[in-house]
Amino acid sequence: MKQADIVVIGGSAAGIAAAITARRHYPEKSIILIRKEAQVLIPCGIPYIFGTLGKPENNLIPDSVLQNNNIELIVNEAVELHAKELDPREKKVVLANGELVLYDKLILATGSSPTVLPIPGFDKKNVYTIKKDAKYLQNLLGTLDNVKDLVILGCGFIGVEFADECKKNRDINVTIVEMLDQCLQIVFGEGACKCCQEIEDYLSTKGITIVTGTSIDEILGDEKITAVRLSNGKEIKADALIVGVGVSSNVELAKKAGLATSKAGVFVDTTMRTSDPNIFACGDCATKFSFFTGQPSTLRLASIATTEARIAGANLYEISRKNLGALGVFATAVGDLTVAIAGVSEKGAKNCGFEVVTGEAEAPDRHPAGMPGTSKMWVKLIFNKVNGELIGGAVKGGPSAGELINAISACIQNRMRANDIAIFQIGTHPAVTASPIAYPLVTAAEIALKKMKT
Amino acid sequence: MKQADIVVIGGSAAGIAAAITARRHYPEKSIILIRKEAQVLIPCGIPYIFGTLGKPENNLIPDSVLQNNNIELIVNEAVELHAKELDPREKKVVLANGELVLYDKLILATGSSPTVLPIPGFDKKNVYTIKKDAKYLQNLLGTLDNVKDLVILGCGFIGVEFADECKKNRDINVTIVEMLDQCLQIVFGEGACKCCQEIEDYLSTKGITIVTGTSIDEILGDEKITAVRLSNGKEIKADALIVGVGVSSNVELAKKAGLATSKAGVFVDTTMRTSDPNIFACGDCATKFSFFTGQPSTLRLASIATTEARIAGANLYEISRKNLGALGVFATAVGDLTVAIAGVSEKGAKNCGFEVVTGEAEAPDRHPAGMPGTSKMWVKLIFNKVNGELIGGAVKGGPSAGELINAISACIQNRMRANDIAIFQIGTHPAVTASPIAYPLVTAAEIALKKMKT
Repeated sequence: MKQADIVVIGGSAAGIAAAITARRHYPEKSIILIRKEAQVLIPCGIPYIFGTLGKPENNLIPDSVLQNNNIELIVNEAVELHAKELDPREKKVVLANGELVLYDKLILATGSSPTVLPIPGFDKKNVYTIKKDAKYLQNLLGTLDNVKDLVILGCGFIGVEFADECKKNRDINVTIVEMLDQCLQIVFGEGACKCCQEIEDYLSTKGITIVTGTSIDEILGDEKITAVRLSNGKEIKADALIVGVGVSSNVELAKKAGLATSKAGVFVDTTMRTSDPNIFACGDCATKFSFFTGQPSTLRLASIATTEARIAGANLYEISRKNLGALGVFATAVGDLTVAIAGVSEKGAKNCGFEVVTGEAEAPDRHPAGMPGTSKMWVKLIFNKVNGELIGGAVKGGPSAGELINAISACIQNRMRANDIAIFQIGTHPAVTASPIAYPLVTAAEIALKKMKT
Repeated sequence: MKQADIVVIGGSAAGIAAAITARRHYPEKSIILIRKEAQVLIPCGIPYIFGTLGKPENNLIPDSVLQNNNIELIVNEAVELHAKELDPREKKVVLANGELVLYDKLILATGSSPTVLPIPGFDKKNVYTIKKDAKYLQNLLGTLDNVKDLVILGCGFIGVEFADECKKNRDINVTIVEMLDQCLQIVFGEGACKCCQEIEDYLSTKGITIVTGTSIDEILGDEKITAVRLSNGKEIKADALIVGVGVSSNVELAKKAGLATSKAGVFVDTTMRTSDPNIFACGDCATKFSFFTGQPSTLRLASIATTEARIAGANLYEISRKNLGALGVFATAVGDLTVAIAGVSEKGAKNCGFEVVTGEAEAPDRHPAGMPGTSKMWVKLIFNKVNGELIGGAVKGGPSAGELINAISACIQNRMRANDIAIFQIGTHPAVTASPIAYPLVTAAEIALKKMKT
């Protein structure tokens, strides 16, 4: 039997961030982190295992982050959980080997698992989902050595990144099948199709085929996949299928213990507390709500998970932080192109009933444009027409788009209005940013403002 | 005689931004911009003329930005100005050729000029200040062809950039003379010396000599400079001297017209109006106050100038914007290193009597660190201990530091507290940002918070 003041179940982004936060806020407490994986993968880095990084071992979160923070690590599966409300005698976690771990405060960060889709043939050999499991992905890596025709289902960020990476250094045919009309449309909505179009163009130049407006109805083959049949009736040859759509929250442990759960996750309040006052949950396993509407959100992102983890870890013994709701800040990069989005898309806003005003602007991301390494930086801002607040932004440009979207996220989080952003004091430099005269974030706000007036 | 609803005097960053903003907000008004320069240089790009860009012609703001916005350009010097308060019959600008330009609303964006320092010998040949004048800089460029020993006075951003650029592709000795103890200390204060030290190290590897803690007492030579004598008594051989310290606001025109002015600039209120209700001023020629203290500020930056211009241009006929005060967001880059600062430095804060709490964090700016193009990203945050608000930030890293400082600027401008930044929802991606677990902006906030509690 072991025991600690604070026990965290789950060793991915949310679990680690929660444990480190708990350590920072409660230096005197003992902390144990329980996880089932021998090694932990960087979730967002998984696609890069198949090209840029070369193997799962190059995409690990080192356990030194736990050691350095005096967090004890137990590698084992938590199979049972006793919540005080149901079992007042003791608060304990039961491990797969029968060992018990007693806790005073518990954080659930059990994550999510890829959804098993109800497609006939989904259980055939060489059909892969994207599990955060080094061995499983090593297996996929080996499979790719013997593949000539790879199909990827879903053209969100994961699909784009897998396609690009799998095609690198491999002489294989890669086809992406996407239900919507355009690649990345699920993220950007219909309004920001500049980003989607440029990503599609990039993938095409790399020889990747994109089939949109259709889904997979059946996976063909005997034991092993040989082809997929699309809902439009066509068949595509396939030695392997990678499914990059849908995750489900891992709620089994919480549910068995009697905590309030649903398919959407373990229920938490804005302090990240579950229905048991000593148990918190964060990350992919926890329910989420939108920053904009307060309504349930299906977003599952490492940036949301770590934000929730920093709330849960800080609030264990003293409530000092409150969840503002999921904002949704994504970025991806292929070749020299980075695209990113924060908040809601134009279409997403309209779906929620928001009347919106948008502004777009483009400028070189260096000044003058003759400076080395110049890309075009395009920015779109989406404002709520009623109260004038910024509710969304999209960016397309060079690598610095990855941080520019965070400046936009800060503007959204602080509910800035177009007039505020138009007089935003931005730091600029010829070698690293757009010109102060043409800075596209500011110009996009001005353009939206002009539309609001007319 | 000409006339327009809106007349702008000055064609650099502030003048252009003011005119464009006026066009956006008052589409029906006629606008004339008067400037004396035949061509307008990108102010921040000036150092790059001497290396990366090669000549002034590669660092111009194209006049098409005026044409595209239906702004009439007059290239001539405004030598006299009649303000309504003093001359109720007409509101007019007198040009050097005697021509008159009548206005209804006027924006002064007359900028600043390099201060002539009271150093004996300052008028010798080959002593250059940094004038925003293409011909003058072309002359300096020619001079550098015949120089063996170049001395640069002042190791702020301008001094660093000039030294690095002048050394490129030239076999010359470059020495920077700086009064303070360290290069860039005037910007970063003593507390963020990591940035200063790395810039110094970079310049040293390029063979540039930095002499700190001293100034220039005399410029030696007959007609032409041959050496400088430092205040520590030493002499340094010099065929040319570039002076990168100090600018003075161009207030002569406003002063002659009877507007309230001082050495600090043309007096303006928070709407950017001068003492005459029909005349606005913005940019280097206008008085400034600190975002943090409300006290006079000597900051002169293109980002402040363009912000003020966007306030002035919008407020001409209807006050809709208010100046929040100068924040101060700077960035520079040498080699692969970008350093940037927003708000006050630790020392600057202490000088204002603010008790501060700081937090520092460093992480690779890609994740895993094995991703191509990874640099170390270091962030320092400075909080006001009394109210917990972020008042300053410094960043050191790769090119994306240029946009990360803008995310920090947004946090400062919205007076965010450490607890707010600790749960900031940042977008992350392996190829373009730090990891969501180790994102240094968030970690630095957590570290500061921990110090606040103890």
